[in-house]
Amino acid sequence: MDSNKSDRRRFLKQAAALAGVAAGAGLVTAKGQPTQDKHVHVEPPRRGARYSIDHLTHYTPLQDYAGIITPSRVHFVQQHSSEFPEIDADEHRLTIHGMVDRPLSFSMDDLKRLPSVSRVHFLECQGNSSSLIHTARAEPNMGLPVQYIWGMTSCSEWTGVPLSVLLKEAGVKKEGSWLVYEGADPGKFSHTLPMGKAMDDVFVAYAQNGDPVRVEQGYPIRMIVPGWEGPFSVKYLRHIKVVDQPYHAWNEAMNHSVTRADVGDKARWYHFQWATKSVITRPSAGMELRRGYVQITGLAWSGAGKIAKVDVSTDGGKTWREARIDGAVHSKAHTRFNFDWEWNGQETVIMSRSTDETGDVQPSREALYRNWGIKDLEHPARTTHFNAIQPWKIARDGTISDVMFAA
Amino acid sequence: MDSNKSDRRRFLKQAAALAGVAAGAGLVTAKGQPTQDKHVHVEPPRRGARYSIDHLTHYTPLQDYAGIITPSRVHFVQQHSSEFPEIDADEHRLTIHGMVDRPLSFSMDDLKRLPSVSRVHFLECQGNSSSLIHTARAEPNMGLPVQYIWGMTSCSEWTGVPLSVLLKEAGVKKEGSWLVYEGADPGKFSHTLPMGKAMDDVFVAYAQNGDPVRVEQGYPIRMIVPGWEGPFSVKYLRHIKVVDQPYHAWNEAMNHSVTRADVGDKARWYHFQWATKSVITRPSAGMELRRGYVQITGLAWSGAGKIAKVDVSTDGGKTWREARIDGAVHSKAHTRFNFDWEWNGQETVIMSRSTDETGDVQPSREALYRNWGIKDLEHPARTTHFNAIQPWKIARDGTISDVMFAA
Repeated sequence: MDSNKSDRRRFLKQAAALAGVAAGAGLVTAKGQPTQDKHVHVEPPRRGARYSIDHLTHYTPLQDYAGIITPSRVHFVQQHSSEFPEIDADEHRLTIHGMVDRPLSFSMDDLKRLPSVSRVHFLECQGNSSSLIHTARAEPNMGLPVQYIWGMTSCSEWTGVPLSVLLKEAGVKKEGSWLVYEGADPGKFSHTLPMGKAMDDVFVAYAQNGDPVRVEQGYPIRMIVPGWEGPFSVKYLRHIKVVDQPYHAWNEAMNHSVTRADVGDKARWYHFQWATKSVITRPSAGMELRRGYVQITGLAWSGAGKIAKVDVSTDGGKTWREARIDGAVHSKAHTRFNFDWEWNGQETVIMSRSTDETGDVQPSREALYRNWGIKDLEHPARTTHFNAIQPWKIARDGTISDVMFAA
Repeated sequence: MDSNKSDRRRFLKQAAALAGVAAGAGLVTAKGQPTQDKHVHVEPPRRGARYSIDHLTHYTPLQDYAGIITPSRVHFVQQHSSEFPEIDADEHRLTIHGMVDRPLSFSMDDLKRLPSVSRVHFLECQGNSSSLIHTARAEPNMGLPVQYIWGMTSCSEWTGVPLSVLLKEAGVKKEGSWLVYEGADPGKFSHTLPMGKAMDDVFVAYAQNGDPVRVEQGYPIRMIVPGWEGPFSVKYLRHIKVVDQPYHAWNEAMNHSVTRADVGDKARWYHFQWATKSVITRPSAGMELRRGYVQITGLAWSGAGKIAKVDVSTDGGKTWREARIDGAVHSKAHTRFNFDWEWNGQETVIMSRSTDETGDVQPSREALYRNWGIKDLEHPARTTHFNAIQPWKIARDGTISDVMFAA
C-alpha cells in the first residue's frame, strides 16, 4: 500500500502571475466562503433558562474546523433534561457513598486541590453516525451532510481529578465492584460504571480547553469516561454510589438499550467502548468540487487507544493509500488526517478507513451488519455503536452526496 | 532520582464526613476563588480601533488554566504597531517574489485549498521570563507574579499551509538562501528567516484552536516558526521575498538585538531557537499555601523538540524528583507537568527543571550567565533568551514570592 506522503513539487496547475493564482483547482464549499473565515456563532446557554429541543441538541460542524480541538462553544450537545441546570459552583458538592469506608463530600475547591490530569479525549453520543435518529436533517439531493450524520462527537482537552484518587480517599470496600452515579440536572441523569474502568482512566473534569467546563457540558463538573459511549460521561455530576452490581438505570436499560429480535426483543443493556471510526470531513456531502488538486481531510478515533493509521480510497474502495497524520497522536482522541488528491472530473466515491493501535480496522457497513448478525437493514440496532466506513459520492458536476443513507 | 509517581492511598489528611472535607490542606489563591471558576475576560480587539500600549501588550495568565492549550482570547500579545490592522480577508493576498521562477500571489481561498498541517506549538516573546522589561508590574512583598514574568508565552493548535509548499509552487532559484517577509500592520513588521528552517516546519496559519486566527494574533494569516523566538512568527503576513543574504530588519538589528560590551557594544543580531524552559505556575508568587497536600503544576517546553522530563525540587535545589507528564507530548509545545507534595509549614524554595529530547537541561540563572560570559547581572543581555530555572520562595506564613527578581 502506497503512502500519500507526496513529494511532488507543485499542487497548483497554473503558474500564476502576481495577478493571482488561477482558481482552477480544488475545493469550494457549496455556500460561498470557506467556513474558516467565519466564527461559528452559537449563543452560550443561559443557566436555568428553558430551551426548545433544538437548543438542547447541537451537532458539531466537523466540516468547519481543522485540527483536533473542537472549539468549546460548538462541542456537541445532547441534553436529556428540559433545561441546563443553574448550579452555584460555590454550593455544589460531589458525594461518594455506598460501599466505602468514609463517605465523603467534596466542594469544588476540594477537587481542585487534589492531583489533576489534563488529557485530550473525544466524547461521542452512542447514536452518532447512524441514520435513524438524524434523518430529520436530511436535505434533498445530497443525503445527509457530515455535520448531521457525524457531528455528535467532539474533542477537548479536559482537566480534572482522577476518579481513582477520590475513590481511594473514600476507601472502597471489598464488595464494591460497580458505581452508579447521577447528575444534578432536573432529569437526574444516571449511569453505571464497572470498578475496573473507574480505577483506570476516568476523571472528574472541571476544565475544558483551559476554561471552566461550559454550562451545556456539565458545569461545574463532568465525569469523563475516555473512549466509552457518551452517556457514561454524566454532566453536573453530584452523587457517586459504590455498589456491588450493575444498576439498570433508565438511560441504560430503556432509553439507550438495543433490542434483539432474535432473543424475543430482550435488550442488550450495556455498551461500553467505541470501536475505531473515521470520516472525511472535507470534501463531504453538500460541498462542490472543481477539477484539480483537492486536499482530503478528516478525523479518526478509537475508544481502545491511539489511531495507528488511516487509509483513504478515491475509487470506491478498490485501492487504498495511507493518509498523513501530523504531530503527536493522543489516545482515545480525534486524530487529524490529510490526503493529497487530484480529481479528474469523473464520478467516483471517496472514503476513509481507520486502524487503531490494537489492530482493529473500521468495517464497511455490510461487514458491520454481518458481524452483528443483522439482516434487516432497517433494524434499529444500527442506530447505536455504528462505526462503519462513510462513503461520499462525487458526481461529474462536482456535487457531493452521502451514499450510505441517501437511499 | 525518585519519580513522583506516587501510589499513596490518600491525599487529604482528614477523613471528612458528608458535612464536608475539612479545608485543612492545599492551595488557595491569594484572591478568593480558584480562577478556574471564572472565565478570564479579555475584550476582543476591534479591528482598526486604536489602543493604548496596555491593550497592545497582554500577558497570558499561566496560573489560571490547566492543560496545554491556552484559551485563544488570553494568548499573549506584544503588538509592535499602534493598532490592530483592519484587514478584509477577501481582499488580502500573500505574495512570494524575489529569487523565484514564478512570482505568486495567493488569496486566502487559494491557501486553504492547498495541503494543510495542524500542529500544537508554543509562541514566546524573546524577552519572556526576564526581569528588565517587566518590572513595571512588580508588586511589593512578592516580587513578580508568574503571569508578568512568564506570561509572554502561549500554546495553540495552529492550522495552515506549509511554507515549503508555497515556496515550491513559486520555485526557489538556486541562489535563494534567505527570506525576508513583512506584515500588513501599520509598522510593516519584518523579519528574516534562513531557507533551511523555511523548508523544514514553518507554516502559514489561518486557524488557531479551530477558529480563524484572532485579530490580535494576525488575522487572516500568521507565519508560524515553531520553536523560534516570537518575532519570527510575523502577523498579518503579506509579502515574502526570497533573497540571498540575511536582511537586517529593524526588529532584528535594532529593536531586538543584544549588545555585547566585550566587543565594543556591537550587536549579536540573530537569535533563533528557544532553549528548554519550565516554570511552576501553581503555587507561585502572590498565592498562599496551607500545610498539607499541595499539587505543584507547571509548564515545560523547548524550541528543539519534545520535553523528555521535568524534575521538581521542594528544598531549594538540594534534591530533585521527576514530575508526572500525562498523555502525548507535542514537539515545540507546552507540556503540562504535575507533582504531589506535602508542605510541612517550613520555609523553603520550590522550582522545576526541564530536560528536552536533545538532552538539553534548563540551567540555573548563575549557570546561564556563566555560560553567556555575563558578569554584570544588570547587563541587558539577560532580557532576551532567558531560560533559567524559576525559584519560588515559600515563607512560614504560606506567602509565596519570586526570589529571582525580587532583589
